[in-house]
Amino acid sequence: MKALVFNRTLQMKEMTEPKPAEDEVLIRVRMAGICNTDIEITRGYMGFRGVLGHEFVGEVVASDRNEWMGKRVVADINLGCGECEYCRNGLRRHCPQRRVTGILGKDGAFAEFIAYPVTNLFAIPDSISDEEAVFIEPIAAACEILEQVHIEPIHRVAVVGDGKLGQLIARVLRLTGCRMTVYGMSEQKLRLLESLGIETSLSESSMNEKYDVIVEASGSTSGFAKALELIKPRGVFVLKSTMHEATSINTASLVIDEIQLIGSRCGRFEPAVRLMENRLIDVKPLISGIYPFEDAMGAFEEAKKSATLKVLLNFR
Amino acid sequence: MKALVFNRTLQMKEMTEPKPAEDEVLIRVRMAGICNTDIEITRGYMGFRGVLGHEFVGEVVASDRNEWMGKRVVADINLGCGECEYCRNGLRRHCPQRRVTGILGKDGAFAEFIAYPVTNLFAIPDSISDEEAVFIEPIAAACEILEQVHIEPIHRVAVVGDGKLGQLIARVLRLTGCRMTVYGMSEQKLRLLESLGIETSLSESSMNEKYDVIVEASGSTSGFAKALELIKPRGVFVLKSTMHEATSINTASLVIDEIQLIGSRCGRFEPAVRLMENRLIDVKPLISGIYPFEDAMGAFEEAKKSATLKVLLNFR
Repeated sequence: MKALVFNRTLQMKEMTEPKPAEDEVLIRVRMAGICNTDIEITRGYMGFRGVLGHEFVGEVVASDRNEWMGKRVVADINLGCGECEYCRNGLRRHCPQRRVTGILGKDGAFAEFIAYPVTNLFAIPDSISDEEAVFIEPIAAACEILEQVHIEPIHRVAVVGDGKLGQLIARVLRLTGCRMTVYGMSEQKLRLLESLGIETSLSESSMNEKYDVIVEASGSTSGFAKALELIKPRGVFVLKSTMHEATSINTASLVIDEIQLIGSRCGRFEPAVRLMENRLIDVKPLISGIYPFEDAMGAFEEAKKSATLKVLLNFR
Repeated sequence: MKALVFNRTLQMKEMTEPKPAEDEVLIRVRMAGICNTDIEITRGYMGFRGVLGHEFVGEVVASDRNEWMGKRVVADINLGCGECEYCRNGLRRHCPQRRVTGILGKDGAFAEFIAYPVTNLFAIPDSISDEEAVFIEPIAAACEILEQVHIEPIHRVAVVGDGKLGQLIARVLRLTGCRMTVYGMSEQKLRLLESLGIETSLSESSMNEKYDVIVEASGSTSGFAKALELIKPRGVFVLKSTMHEATSINTASLVIDEIQLIGSRCGRFEPAVRLMENRLIDVKPLISGIYPFEDAMGAFEEAKKSATLKVLLNFR
């Protein structure tokens, strides 16, 4: 099978098909999405070597269990040990022994086939297209904020970042009824949010308002520092983007203003599937291009451009 | 009156007695405590100039309101505007216009008299001695953690720091029934905690365990970094000590492990008075020395020594 592999450089390679282990199925990938994390990995993040890709939808083509055969599925990317305190409490995404698809210790989905534990699978209803299903993983990551922070309808919320992740976070958080502003660098991307009735502001504009909750999804150190200035005393600052460098933080101001800083990563798939099935999140305007998998290298170059939102790989 | 004033240097000075404004009383200070913040101010923290001191107990000696005359009182050190969103919600300690006794815009209690708004006063029952009452302000700061974080009896908790603040925090948090370990540098200070049945460890010991909740009260950058290594995924890290320098934090690890970092400062006096009145916290072993106010300079030198815990100033 063909696979997009990162090993110091990014290359399309011929590989042998994965063999499902016990309790695993074989999935033929139908469509996959390129995430900023994929791009960061090619710059050294996580030190990962192997097949990239963790946003995908596919079809189960080999399984010991008849109920999964032929099913269209998405899959939680965190593969836990199943036995530790975290796995037993439904938090396999924090299992200390976990593998993470395309990020840590497990080959990813930029390949024709991928083997996957049954316990991580979610069957997708026909009403959700492949193009939409690919967004379930990043929507789950956006929903994670709602699991960690109680966003009240009365809260004043800011999302810093108008890229792929910021767009999805804004679409999820608007469902809380909160008053939200998205700060970004691109008028074009901000316009997508305005069409949903979301208040926006260019980041360089003077921002006098202070917020109860700020979500940092810009991925830039300067965005992070600016966001810290926008938070109210006792406010909640959600750190959603992983930055390479260690960041210098004035801890005295965190103490004096009693700021709550929360790191936020992957989320559960169930609410993301529900929101999509109920048509509460429209992801189609976020698709910048769909490339045949054979041209994954070209798709990657497109995904790196700052004007681009989501680039999909089509295996069908 | 005599007062201990910081203005580039620390000096005992003769000053005129403060005149209470409308809604203020005049308090004759009976006893006061030296806090690390006082020492930090003499090193430049907050840029404060004026009379130091914010931990005190005194007697109301002049008041328009008869009900306060002659009362023994302690006082919330945050003086709010009374009108903003924070003041109206009982959070005057976050009023953007606030003055803070002996720290920001208001002369402190290392003086024979201090003027104070009635709204900040708490009458102290006779069962609480002056020596004990001085601890109500820092106990309130320890209780603030309980307002911000739900510490469950099942939680594994670590307090990093065995100094004045760490000692009080440990005494407050043990009341939750949690399993707690205090890490410190001084065998002698740790022994005080062991006598209360609290588990302790020297900071240099290898610390293999991970914690649900960590309270950083060491005030040192190295203690901060070490404490970050001790936290479980999804753990809560309470930042209780203000450090001068900006601290470099690996934000990627905060995101991956979804750590919650919470700054924590002053607290409400009510629970602190209750805990003391109900004899649930014994502060007497924390008193290293009681100096007559005339020898405040000597008391300050004593307070700076690393082996010293609380030094009190006696005005009676």
